[in-house]
Amino acid sequence: MEKWEGLIRSIPDFPQKGIVFRDITPLLGDGAAFCSAVNHLVKACPPETEMVAGIEARGFIFAAAVANQLGVGFVPIRKAGKLPYLTETVTYDLEYGTDTLEIHQDALSGKKNVVLIDDLLATGGTAAAACRLLEKAGGHILKAVFLIELVNLAGRAKITDCDVSALIQF
Amino acid sequence: MEKWEGLIRSIPDFPQKGIVFRDITPLLGDGAAFCSAVNHLVKACPPETEMVAGIEARGFIFAAAVANQLGVGFVPIRKAGKLPYLTETVTYDLEYGTDTLEIHQDALSGKKNVVLIDDLLATGGTAAAACRLLEKAGGHILKAVFLIELVNLAGRAKITDCDVSALIQF
Repeated sequence: MEKWEGLIRSIPDFPQKGIVFRDITPLLGDGAAFCSAVNHLVKACPPETEMVAGIEARGFIFAAAVANQLGVGFVPIRKAGKLPYLTETVTYDLEYGTDTLEIHQDALSGKKNVVLIDDLLATGGTAAAACRLLEKAGGHILKAVFLIELVNLAGRAKITDCDVSALIQF
Repeated sequence: MEKWEGLIRSIPDFPQKGIVFRDITPLLGDGAAFCSAVNHLVKACPPETEMVAGIEARGFIFAAAVANQLGVGFVPIRKAGKLPYLTETVTYDLEYGTDTLEIHQDALSGKKNVVLIDDLLATGGTAAAACRLLEKAGGHILKAVFLIELVNLAGRAKITDCDVSALIQF
């Protein structure tokens, strides 16, 4: 087991009763462990990766570090109303209600081969919406790479556009 | 002029009439420019830096990349209600109303010397609140480093705890 696997803190009943929240802040706070996790995510990116996309807010942390280490561009996928230029929008279902994500139409800067990186794959709704946005912006999604996968929620089945991998499975 | 200075896009009247929004997404989307900007931010960090803090959401992008490149831990400062463990809280005034930021009480993992990195120094209210949180969590703030400083808003005067520097001034 890598050191970083022991640095995910489980918080019961957050954000609501019955949910066990996987808190990555102890891992982030350990410089060596954070570096090791980023290195593993970098290795999971195919060599033809031209852009790395991350989802607001926690997803920005790993995705930006990976993009920077690969020397490629970073694409922010944001909540509605945050991006100032022309956007593509996807609204998707949550357990209660809906959520909306946006991407700039020119976010890929003319590049095509993009990897999606996020900290957590749960039900897969957010990741699937992010994939649709990247395709709307002209991207070809090489892979979706997650720090943590909650296997029992079967989110992987919702990501039909590309390969999926995760560093840690609960 | 560094290449990245030409990759900040000015969007008039966003998020409201009369505001010129400085859009960093073209810079983020250019791998070489993003790397160059991160390298400059890394160089602005004192050698005794033990932790790098970033403010949700856009601030995570540069702060996480800098922490990773320095090989130090990353401290997320978040909007209210997002952090699952014991937190410190600061509420501060906006032009209309207030906003609240939080930090985990154990966010510094026993370290002390922290650098705050954010993409934008505007009125300084958010950065000053982040400094107060870092001090509540036991941190000694070595420096606050920004990608962009809007000089006419005089935010620098609000950050009284440490040195301030910025890569780009408007």
